[in-house]
Amino acid sequence: MRVLLFAGGTMEEDFFSAVTEDDYLIGVDSGAYALIEHGYIPHLAVGDFDSVTPEQKDDILLHSVEWKSCDPVDKDKTDTEIGLESALEKQPHKIVMFGVTGTRLDHTLSNIYLLERACEEGVEAEIIDKHNKLFVAGRYTKIEKDMYSYVSIIPISEKVKGLSLKGFVYPLDNACLERGQTLGISNQIKGAYGEITVKSGHILVVKSSDGKV
Amino acid sequence: MRVLLFAGGTMEEDFFSAVTEDDYLIGVDSGAYALIEHGYIPHLAVGDFDSVTPEQKDDILLHSVEWKSCDPVDKDKTDTEIGLESALEKQPHKIVMFGVTGTRLDHTLSNIYLLERACEEGVEAEIIDKHNKLFVAGRYTKIEKDMYSYVSIIPISEKVKGLSLKGFVYPLDNACLERGQTLGISNQIKGAYGEITVKSGHILVVKSSDGKV
Repeated sequence: MRVLLFAGGTMEEDFFSAVTEDDYLIGVDSGAYALIEHGYIPHLAVGDFDSVTPEQKDDILLHSVEWKSCDPVDKDKTDTEIGLESALEKQPHKIVMFGVTGTRLDHTLSNIYLLERACEEGVEAEIIDKHNKLFVAGRYTKIEKDMYSYVSIIPISEKVKGLSLKGFVYPLDNACLERGQTLGISNQIKGAYGEITVKSGHILVVKSSDGKV
Repeated sequence: MRVLLFAGGTMEEDFFSAVTEDDYLIGVDSGAYALIEHGYIPHLAVGDFDSVTPEQKDDILLHSVEWKSCDPVDKDKTDTEIGLESALEKQPHKIVMFGVTGTRLDHTLSNIYLLERACEEGVEAEIIDKHNKLFVAGRYTKIEKDMYSYVSIIPISEKVKGLSLKGFVYPLDNACLERGQTLGISNQIKGAYGEITVKSGHILVVKSSDGKV
């Protein structure tokens, strides 16, 4: 099963075209309302719903299969972290997160780190926004060439060892990369696919297309 | 001395109001042109200048005190990393980076990690964009309450130990936080200032105001 999670960040119309009948849908806060607005029923709505109007909150509670309310003030986790934990409980083969990036870089960053949590539990997870697709690579990852021009490799562990890139314009063979090094930015896949191998440490893979930074 | 670095990300008019006579100005790629456009002379222009027109490149070379050209294709560092290294060579008391965030999350993230590099070299460094101010905290950091509503604490090391927050709405005493935990998101300073102490590991501090994620 695949879980699609829609949160309260920057939302794009075409995010919803990803939804299929078989997906389990989690709406986080105003992301739950966005799902309902687009004609989808969240299987689970999560949040304190402080970013929607009382009428929208009523709609969410009425139209969601289940909901999990969070204390709006004293809570130790963001709504999106609670949403991701709920997603992991479903033991899906994949989690895709939409609306988890935006102008507030604290939320954007902490949501990116949630990808590492999913990776540690062995679940494939990715974030998609208007310009980027992000995921944390496992020990071996094969990446198909697609619409994105660039594939960047960013160490999020202090040190990444045994990093090999095959099928890339700038290959690497058993390299060591430290967090803060920008060597892996703006690489490109040469043929139909690229292969990434990592012996220890976590790397974030960011597929992106050109634009301002 | 303070170094202000302007790079090619999302630029705002009011970034330039930060410039004073005493600042050393580094323009990275189209950021160098943005400085010139606003009537400032970059002390150093860095980049392959592939994101400006040939006429703009001529202007940059003509109007900058010094320039450092990078190979546009085969290079191991982003222009901004080279810019930051040039900034560190000046042994400033502070580095402020503008135009280093934007739609491409690979660049945004790798620029955020440059803050950690500066912190390791004992230089105070921050990133300012339209919605956020970011810096990596040292062992002890005092934060004045200002226009930003929220102060988020994000572990970028795998584990952060001995984390204490005083003067915050949600205080912490000698806590351990792991990367991926969202406990530190959306804290607030209670009085005139807050104090952060960290015994080991690095945390990113993100000041932000409300908006979409």
